[in-house]
Amino acid sequence: MPWKGRHFLSLNDLSREEMIGLMQRASHFLDAGDRYEPGAPLAGKIIANLFMENSTRTRCSFTIASKRLGGDVVDLLGETSSTSKGETLVDTALNLEAMGIAGIAIRCSEERGPWDIAEHVGVPVINAGSGTTSHPTQALLDAVTLTRYFGKDELSGEHIAIVGDIAHSRVARSNVVGLTKLGATVTLVGPPELVPDDLGCETSSDFDGVLSCVNACMMLRVQFERDAQVGEDYRKQYGLTGERAKNFDGAIMHPGPMNRGLEIDDCVANVESSPHNLILSQVTSGVATRMAILEHLIG
Amino acid sequence: MPWKGRHFLSLNDLSREEMIGLMQRASHFLDAGDRYEPGAPLAGKIIANLFMENSTRTRCSFTIASKRLGGDVVDLLGETSSTSKGETLVDTALNLEAMGIAGIAIRCSEERGPWDIAEHVGVPVINAGSGTTSHPTQALLDAVTLTRYFGKDELSGEHIAIVGDIAHSRVARSNVVGLTKLGATVTLVGPPELVPDDLGCETSSDFDGVLSCVNACMMLRVQFERDAQVGEDYRKQYGLTGERAKNFDGAIMHPGPMNRGLEIDDCVANVESSPHNLILSQVTSGVATRMAILEHLIG
Amino acid sequence: MPWKGRHFLSLNDLSREEMIGLMQRASHFLDAGDRYEPGAPLAGKIIANLFMENSTRTRCSFTIASKRLGGDVVDLLGETSSTSKGETLVDTALNLEAMGIAGIAIRCSEERGPWDIAEHVGVPVINAGSGTTSHPTQALLDAVTLTRYFGKDELSGEHIAIVGDIAHSRVARSNVVGLTKLGATVTLVGPPELVPDDLGCETSSDFDGVLSCVNACMMLRVQFERDAQVGEDYRKQYGLTGERAKNFDGAIMHPGPMNRGLEIDDCVANVESSPHNLILSQVTSGVATRMAILEHLIG
Repeated sequence: MPWKGRHFLSLNDLSREEMIGLMQRASHFLDAGDRYEPGAPLAGKIIANLFMENSTRTRCSFTIASKRLGGDVVDLLGETSSTSKGETLVDTALNLEAMGIAGIAIRCSEERGPWDIAEHVGVPVINAGSGTTSHPTQALLDAVTLTRYFGKDELSGEHIAIVGDIAHSRVARSNVVGLTKLGATVTLVGPPELVPDDLGCETSSDFDGVLSCVNACMMLRVQFERDAQVGEDYRKQYGLTGERAKNFDGAIMHPGPMNRGLEIDDCVANVESSPHNLILSQVTSGVATRMAILEHLIG
Repeated sequence: MPWKGRHFLSLNDLSREEMIGLMQRASHFLDAGDRYEPGAPLAGKIIANLFMENSTRTRCSFTIASKRLGGDVVDLLGETSSTSKGETLVDTALNLEAMGIAGIAIRCSEERGPWDIAEHVGVPVINAGSGTTSHPTQALLDAVTLTRYFGKDELSGEHIAIVGDIAHSRVARSNVVGLTKLGATVTLVGPPELVPDDLGCETSSDFDGVLSCVNACMMLRVQFERDAQVGEDYRKQYGLTGERAKNFDGAIMHPGPMNRGLEIDDCVANVESSPHNLILSQVTSGVATRMAILEHLIG
Repeated sequence: MPWKGRHFLSLNDLSREEMIGLMQRASHFLDAGDRYEPGAPLAGKIIANLFMENSTRTRCSFTIASKRLGGDVVDLLGETSSTSKGETLVDTALNLEAMGIAGIAIRCSEERGPWDIAEHVGVPVINAGSGTTSHPTQALLDAVTLTRYFGKDELSGEHIAIVGDIAHSRVARSNVVGLTKLGATVTLVGPPELVPDDLGCETSSDFDGVLSCVNACMMLRVQFERDAQVGEDYRKQYGLTGERAKNFDGAIMHPGPMNRGLEIDDCVANVESSPHNLILSQVTSGVATRMAILEHLIG
């Protein structure tokens, strides 16, 4: 069932079937391999990466996704953009549209930034992370990674823990929406001050207890750059240490960038150390997922 | 009549007929639509955006213009370039030429920067804004926008107001040259301390009086980043407020980025609110105008 | 004899014959001219410029080399990359590989950075300058420039001076390896506190004496950004002044960016002033040399 939306702002806007449709297309791109093939659906089109906050990973992922579809990209990065001269985000976006840009991937600290833009421009807007609530392309790529790991189309019957600095995490909030829509049960784990209880999920501060009954464990980055504060025993209580990982045979995920030795131990993060480590698979799924979204909206 | 220049440094170097020739080519690109078509005159060529000052808008416009002509671009931005290690602008430009770059678009704070470079390199140099005096591609795109609005080839008989922080505006100075060369009358409006009287134009501090007798009104950005200072009643006296705009049926322009609520009111800036609002048309003309210049010099 | 390495980390890894093989290929690209031709060996491939330190020149050179071979590039620059969020260089590189990047050109302040990355990723890694010891692509392009100047395949019988701030110079250290491997004699010249005596070369503080018996003179940038300190008479003792250059008929080189008026006088730096000035030839050789390396490793 093809998705009808003109923008990609939140997983709340997609039905379960529409999510699965995009995920299957992403999976197709993954099976097709890593080469980018010019001459494809975005030929002659330029996408704008309007990134008001730094994010090498997500920006490169959109860039590579666009190029693999035959398109091109212009980057507008926070500190060097016209908004530093007082221009509004919407004016910047209207300017990009007036220049003939075919779509805008927007990363910003304002919760509603992508919606504000989408209300004013005629080209597709993709939310590449806004405020602390939304990062729908990350949640979709996580879902792609998990369904491929479990070998099925959706996630009914699966139980997934999201662990750590949930308070500052747009990744967590979008994943709660996406994973539950696909049928999974989600438990949020972490120190009470970093785990909001209003996200409609069970919460816990007993990581070991939760770990013994979930099939996948999504570790979150402690976001010091957003003033997250954690105690001295954070690693011991909420880190995926080597010892904990030894007793866990589910999938291990992390959206990156990782604080090695804090929320995850070196020996766990290292890909080679476990067949269940999906951390780099997430990155690979990211390009394919963004290809599926770009192809659908702009191709 | 094709223009013979090897560089594009100032509208002073072009005859009226040469300006019109480039403008007609830009108009052709506007009629051809927004898609960029690979395989065109810049195929296999790389343009350098050497931008010592931030300018998202102009840089993206050159980038998109190059790509629509089939070319590619490398960006050299101020703070990350070798000039931060003490290298001269001319040495940077000579290096770019030695690397096989096909042309250089230069934005810098030095008035004579583009001329210095043009004197030393063998590839075409395009002035993308220098000092407070020259921004010839902006003036040419403004002329393209106005001639299309008036439905004619040049601007004889038209009367145009340029309003606001003229002292710090390279846009104003280049437009005075371009608009008068095309036959228009130009009046400069603003507080006396921001309106130089040596630009060969009538000046005024009576915005309402001027507005009643012009066909187009070009609002300028108050350039706080260049230490412009304006009084508390600036908006009231020199802003294009909703009330003023109601009584004006000529063209409304702004080179952007806009200080909404200062030199121009929200309701005026919003494109939908007036058929005479040319602000985003200027942006669209910008890509087409730079295509015409690049094609002529490098294609 | 084709070179067997999977990465390009140090000239120590290449035999004399392998160096000459790459240099001949670079020379071929130089003879073929400056146009970049799409559809070539890197078609469909994306190279990452992972530059933790600023270097416009080297970054642009890799970018242009990739594009001339039909490839594309993504830039990851120091201050805007995930490493600013505490991610390790190796994790950043693993992410790039997971995104489908075909190769990584890495510039960093850590001596062993490129080796650390090469140990962990499966794609080719090119050392674009690390620490104060290695800049092998610069040394190879210098060798290409010199062999073309002397009209032979290698440098046996030639005597080359490297002059100035050798202590902070990765260029000098890589050139010592490369030039001696090609048969040249190298003398290091400069104030004793800036000339290490453990590089296996003769050293001297008598610039005029050395100049009278060498065939080429490679001036180095005084690296103030690395806290180099020089006395008031540095130019007089170790600068290539107009007067000194007048009595020297060998090749003059400088890796750039130049401190004009310090290590080299304006009249010497200006290309037109001497047929032996190879400074911009080095830049042109740089693109061709990187094309040879990229083609060999990734094409």
